[in-house]
Amino acid sequence: MPETRRLKLIVAYDGRDFAGWQSQKHGNTVQDQIERSFAKICGSRVVVTGASRTDAGVHALGQCAHADVPSGKFSPRDWLKALNGTLPRTIRILRAQFVSKNFHARFSARAKLYRYRMVNAEILPPLELGRAWHVASRLNLELLKKDAALFVGQHDFAGFAANGGGKRTDTFRTIDSLRVVRDGGVIAIDVWGEGFLYKMVRMMVGALVRCASGKAPPEEIATRLRNALPLPPAVAPAEGLYLVRVRY
Amino acid sequence: MPETRRLKLIVAYDGRDFAGWQSQKHGNTVQDQIERSFAKICGSRVVVTGASRTDAGVHALGQCAHADVPSGKFSPRDWLKALNGTLPRTIRILRAQFVSKNFHARFSARAKLYRYRMVNAEILPPLELGRAWHVASRLNLELLKKDAALFVGQHDFAGFAANGGGKRTDTFRTIDSLRVVRDGGVIAIDVWGEGFLYKMVRMMVGALVRCASGKAPPEEIATRLRNALPLPPAVAPAEGLYLVRVRY
Repeated sequence: MPETRRLKLIVAYDGRDFAGWQSQKHGNTVQDQIERSFAKICGSRVVVTGASRTDAGVHALGQCAHADVPSGKFSPRDWLKALNGTLPRTIRILRAQFVSKNFHARFSARAKLYRYRMVNAEILPPLELGRAWHVASRLNLELLKKDAALFVGQHDFAGFAANGGGKRTDTFRTIDSLRVVRDGGVIAIDVWGEGFLYKMVRMMVGALVRCASGKAPPEEIATRLRNALPLPPAVAPAEGLYLVRVRY
Repeated sequence: MPETRRLKLIVAYDGRDFAGWQSQKHGNTVQDQIERSFAKICGSRVVVTGASRTDAGVHALGQCAHADVPSGKFSPRDWLKALNGTLPRTIRILRAQFVSKNFHARFSARAKLYRYRMVNAEILPPLELGRAWHVASRLNLELLKKDAALFVGQHDFAGFAANGGGKRTDTFRTIDSLRVVRDGGVIAIDVWGEGFLYKMVRMMVGALVRCASGKAPPEEIATRLRNALPLPPAVAPAEGLYLVRVRY
C-alpha cells in the first residue's frame, strides 16, 4: 500500500451537465468526473467522498469532498491545478488543502447551507434557464415568510422526505436558520441545517410555494410537520437548488 | 397591401445560442428566430428591426425591436404570448406594445446601456461560463476606475473601433456615464452612450484591462483617444457583454 495523504477539496459545479454527485454506472456524475481526473493524474484509483449527494440538476457553489491521494511532491496547489486541467470546465476545484485523516467530508460536516432560487414572474429571463424555478403564479411573500419560519428548530421532517423518511428510524432534523430574500423577481431561500433528509429542501420549498400561491391551505406546513400528511408532497425542481457551503 | 400596426418589443436572450442579432443566411440569429416565429403566427413575412446589432455571444437583458404586424384582433399581449410560444426558451419577449409608425427601434434610440462583466479571480466559477470574461491576472481597480473616467464625454473613438472606424467619416461618440462596480470577484462596467462604433465597448474594456493589469502603460487610453494608436487594440470577449436597456 502506498502512503497516502488526505486532501480536502472545495468543489463548484453546474448541475445541468451531470447526473448528480454520486457515482453511477454510466459515469456522468461529478464524483465520477473527479475520480477520472485523479486516475489520469495518478494512474491509480482514488475514491472521492462528498459532503452531500446532490441530485441531478442541483448546483454547487461550495461542495466539500475528501480523497486519499498518494504522498509525494504534489502540493495542494499542484493537485488543484492538475485536477482543473483535466476536469470539464463546468466543474472547478476552488480550494485544496491537506487535512488530518480524522477529517471526513460527510461525517465531520457540522452544518450545510442550501440556497433555493426561484423567479416569480410571468416570463423567465433566458439567463435564468436551468438556474432557478420559474414560478409564474402570484406569491404572497408575507405568507411565505411566515410559513418558512415554522421550519426553524427541531421537527419530524418525515412529511418532507421523498421516501417518507424511507428506512430511516429517525426523521427528526434541525433547521438552524431560514432566510427569505426577494430581489426584483428573484426569491432566494437560504437554509442552514445540520442534516437533511432526501429531497427535504426541495419539498420544503414545494410546500411553501403551494401555500403562498393559494393552492394549499396555510396550515398545510404545520400539519405536515405534525406528520399528518394531508396531501402528496410537492417537490420543487432540482435546477433551483444550490449547495452553497459546508461547515466543519 | 394589408393594413399593419407597429409593434415595439423588449427582447432578452442568451447570446451563446445565437450568431448575434442580425439576420444571416444560415438563419441562426435572434432576428431570424423572431422573424421565423412571426411567419409561423401570421403566415406572412414580418421584418424585425433591432436597436442594436449585437454580435455572436453578446447577451441582451433589454434589446428593443419593432415590427409591422398585420392589423387584426391580436392585442400586444396576444403577440407576446404567441411569440414566446414559438421562440426557443433562450429568447424571450419581455414586453410588447403598439407604437406610432414614427417610432423606429434603431433611429429613435436616444441612448443605450451596455454592461460588461468580468470575473477577476484565478478560477472561473462554473456558473459564470459564457457570462463573463475570465481575467486571471491581478487588476489594479483604482487605476481601472481612473482610466475608465477618461472615456466620459465626447471623443474620437476611432482607436476603439474594430475597423478603425471603417468607412465612417465621423468617429466621434459621446459616453454619457461609465460606472465600475466590484462585487466579490465580479467587476461590472456600465456604459451609457448615445451611439457606439463597432465593438467599441469591448475595445474600451480590452484597453482598460490591459492597463489595469500592467500589460500596457497607463497613458495608453489617453493616447488612443488622441487617435495616436500606439498598439493594436485589445478586444474583450463577447461573452461578457450585455445590452441592458435602450432609452427613447
